[in-house]
Amino acid sequence: MSTFQARALYDFSGEPNTAEMTISAGEILTVTRTDVGEGWWEGLNSQGKSGLFPEAYVEKVTTSFPGPPPMPAPVLQPQNYSDDWGSGGNQTSQENDGWDDDWDEDPYSEIPNNSRQQPEQLYANEPNRNQFSKGDADNISEMSFGADNKGTITKKSFNRFSTFVKSGGESYILGTLKVNIEDTHKILIVKIDDGICNWPPIPPANHYTVLVTSPKKESKLKGLKSFIAYQLTPSFNNIQVSRRYKHFDWLHERLTEKFSLIAVPPLPDKQISGRYEEQFIEHRRVQLQEFVNWVCRHPILSSSEVWQHFLTCTDDKLWKQGKRQAEKDPLLGANFCLCIEAPDKNLLQSFVDETIDTSSNFIHNLDTAVKNLMNTAADQARKHAGAFKKEYTKIGESFYSLGTAIESAEKATPTDLATGIKRIGTAYFEIGKIFEDQPKLDWEPLSDKLYIYKGITSSFPDIFAIHKGAQQKRKECEKINTPPAQLSEVRKRTDTVSYAIFAELQHFKSEREVDLKVTMKKYLIEQVNFYKRIVDKLEDTLKFFE
Amino acid sequence: MSTFQARALYDFSGEPNTAEMTISAGEILTVTRTDVGEGWWEGLNSQGKSGLFPEAYVEKVTTSFPGPPPMPAPVLQPQNYSDDWGSGGNQTSQENDGWDDDWDEDPYSEIPNNSRQQPEQLYANEPNRNQFSKGDADNISEMSFGADNKGTITKKSFNRFSTFVKSGGESYILGTLKVNIEDTHKILIVKIDDGICNWPPIPPANHYTVLVTSPKKESKLKGLKSFIAYQLTPSFNNIQVSRRYKHFDWLHERLTEKFSLIAVPPLPDKQISGRYEEQFIEHRRVQLQEFVNWVCRHPILSSSEVWQHFLTCTDDKLWKQGKRQAEKDPLLGANFCLCIEAPDKNLLQSFVDETIDTSSNFIHNLDTAVKNLMNTAADQARKHAGAFKKEYTKIGESFYSLGTAIESAEKATPTDLATGIKRIGTAYFEIGKIFEDQPKLDWEPLSDKLYIYKGITSSFPDIFAIHKGAQQKRKECEKINTPPAQLSEVRKRTDTVSYAIFAELQHFKSEREVDLKVTMKKYLIEQVNFYKRIVDKLEDTLKFFE
Repeated sequence: MSTFQARALYDFSGEPNTAEMTISAGEILTVTRTDVGEGWWEGLNSQGKSGLFPEAYVEKVTTSFPGPPPMPAPVLQPQNYSDDWGSGGNQTSQENDGWDDDWDEDPYSEIPNNSRQQPEQLYANEPNRNQFSKGDADNISEMSFGADNKGTITKKSFNRFSTFVKSGGESYILGTLKVNIEDTHKILIVKIDDGICNWPPIPPANHYTVLVTSPKKESKLKGLKSFIAYQLTPSFNNIQVSRRYKHFDWLHERLTEKFSLIAVPPLPDKQISGRYEEQFIEHRRVQLQEFVNWVCRHPILSSSEVWQHFLTCTDDKLWKQGKRQAEKDPLLGANFCLCIEAPDKNLLQSFVDETIDTSSNFIHNLDTAVKNLMNTAADQARKHAGAFKKEYTKIGESFYSLGTAIESAEKATPTDLATGIKRIGTAYFEIGKIFEDQPKLDWEPLSDKLYIYKGITSSFPDIFAIHKGAQQKRKECEKINTPPAQLSEVRKRTDTVSYAIFAELQHFKSEREVDLKVTMKKYLIEQVNFYKRIVDKLEDTLKFFE
Repeated sequence: MSTFQARALYDFSGEPNTAEMTISAGEILTVTRTDVGEGWWEGLNSQGKSGLFPEAYVEKVTTSFPGPPPMPAPVLQPQNYSDDWGSGGNQTSQENDGWDDDWDEDPYSEIPNNSRQQPEQLYANEPNRNQFSKGDADNISEMSFGADNKGTITKKSFNRFSTFVKSGGESYILGTLKVNIEDTHKILIVKIDDGICNWPPIPPANHYTVLVTSPKKESKLKGLKSFIAYQLTPSFNNIQVSRRYKHFDWLHERLTEKFSLIAVPPLPDKQISGRYEEQFIEHRRVQLQEFVNWVCRHPILSSSEVWQHFLTCTDDKLWKQGKRQAEKDPLLGANFCLCIEAPDKNLLQSFVDETIDTSSNFIHNLDTAVKNLMNTAADQARKHAGAFKKEYTKIGESFYSLGTAIESAEKATPTDLATGIKRIGTAYFEIGKIFEDQPKLDWEPLSDKLYIYKGITSSFPDIFAIHKGAQQKRKECEKINTPPAQLSEVRKRTDTVSYAIFAELQHFKSEREVDLKVTMKKYLIEQVNFYKRIVDKLEDTLKFFE
């Protein structure tokens, strides 16, 4: 690769004792490498010193568009760099991975392999890694339902760059990337009402569902490696495909990377199963089904190429082709907006500000409320099998031993009283069991559903950050003497980002209206049935005394 | 009082540093006082030393009947003597009390009187004295239902003498007390079956009930003294009498003293009410009703003179007469057996031993089981208003705040979803309230019933002790050369004690068969209604989602 000149747009302070280099706004650098990865470039400063700096902080000096004036850099999160950073080495190795070559070495496999490093050690830094695993029958009461504060946001923010810069928002707003978009790839945002717009709705004929079924243990390399494969059957073709969790994970990465303005639903946590493999696998299946359902109902995600490829490809060779193509998709992040055709009408700044403000506030409230209800659900599920069951067992024991005591006087002339009181005891033992069995009917499904919402709400702050970055970039362009034609383009592109977010918010709204209503209904039905089962049990016992 | 000579029947070791005197079996003593009280006599030994010794350990040397040979004394409970013992002073003062003179100074009054010693101080040594009082609304969850290990046994054993000696068992078995019993006072034990006998059943026409109602605050001495009076209305005459707790207490003492072979049901604990006077008084009324019910169904207790006097006397003067008469009743304790006409057939020793053994075992088991269930009931009642209510309130809050969060996004276009989810929240708040209100319908009435059983079971060990004492006395008489005619009388009287206990056990059995069945049924009906109320509440909420 040949070198070229670049001008620093912002000040950047390199982390001391790393390969990073401090640059000053306006400084001219000689770029020597652009394939460092993760948004970093390598280059020489005017003193000939070599180092790394963020690609987004510089611009090629050949560009005809004047850069913005120097300004403080976005606030970045400090981070501990691994040794890999210094050598500029293998951080991109995963990108070069073949599908079947070394993916089985990933830590996602549900089957523990004794010959390799214990999964426990791989996840030593993940505080909640065991939240779904159950140690033994007694530990079932300790089971948690992922009611932690971790969302998909954690992963996406694992970078020193601001969400806006990383998503390519800057280059999109400034119009530096020029790509020809095929008409079939264009997404027309629909304006429903004043200020309300939506993604192009899925035509009723194109609605489809995908069933996630029959997790199967499969193996290869003569049984040396084994894994769980979930069977996916789309309703539009009825052809089953087999996908592993790592395939889902790859897909999720692609969707998140590409649709940075869309709240991609979360995958189940990357957990290693314990001894209760079957329960764990079944639970993961349920969570994958929730993920799949959400994607199927999203107008953009459900019709995306990578998703369709994931759903339908059955051929190994075609799979690899599609995989590579998806990984090279240039329309990632904010640049995906290049595909979007937003309504022509310019948005009022005050309206945009107010809408985003309200929405941001709402998402924050919802996030808190969802996490709170998840905590309650986890707490209840735990107590049902633990404390509550114990209460009823204790009541049962008290009655039962009263029955036994009375029985001890009745050897000569047995009566019904002792038997009756012992039956009350037994009834409460059974009610204890009803309690223990209940959470899988109400609290756990509710929890799985809320898990999706938690993922969605934790995606939005990044989306809002991109929006904010775009707005700021627009304001910068307005402050300097940007030619009117270009400024109009900048404004149009900024509005496109707003429209896209409005559409996504609207989609989320209509989704939850239907989805949460069904969820609450299902939950209540199970709660009613639960207490009815207790009534039945007690009424049965009462018959004995009538 | 003139002195007389007495021979020590057993060794007795006087407590050092008290007025007690050590005596040896066979020693001749000069009795100087027989009115020391509580079973003590004062006298001089052969060395002329003066001191106190138990009346039951000596016999007048004028008696024609030879005393039993020396033997180890019954095992006595050590006791701390108050100063009153030494002076032989006012321990009998209560016996001389007039009805209205100083009874109001007793610590039983439900109305705290600020001008006198605080009730708290009077009861400083009673660990459970506050078990029914409630400090304030928050403390309601700490309310206990008397599920302690204290029964009426505690009070009756407050004496160094064995139950047998104290009840007069010895003089009865030995036939020292000669009393003419009127025919109308004779109690004929009915033999039902081989080995099963019963008290003479109450003729159906004589069955009656007594309602305990309308506790009223009354006062006298121009309001200086106030108390609670309960209204008792017997079904046989429909004439209401007004009785205070202290009257019940006096009655209870008479019944316990007289019917030492009968398990007299317990009175509610002597508690001082706190601020929650009304709840306390109503609860005491319920417990007094339980006591009255049990007495009414007992063939001997329900027809006893003192009970009839208590139930029917409305005249102050007649009341005092009856009171004095009851307090002078000579047929107390084991001597009550003089009234009993038992079946003629001599009982087989092996049968008696086995029956008493089985029954004693049963009573022990029942006592444990009843206390255990009472603990559970108290625990549940506490948790219903505390922990359980909290759980449902927490669930309610979680749903409610989810509803509120969703509402915050719906200002422009309000939907039903937020309202619906908030309704789920409200439903759980109400379920929490249902939980809080429940114990008074099931656990508390069950607890009040079990309280009676706890009192009954804790009465039986004393009854068995009298039986054992009688058996031992008979064996002693068999060992020495007692004249056959006298021995036959001793045996007959011992059998009478056995028959009486068999009758009492049989009565308890038939009582509980009916009573516990009704109790369990009532409890179960309330439990069914409880869970049905929860189902109704949830079904109401579910309608919103349909």
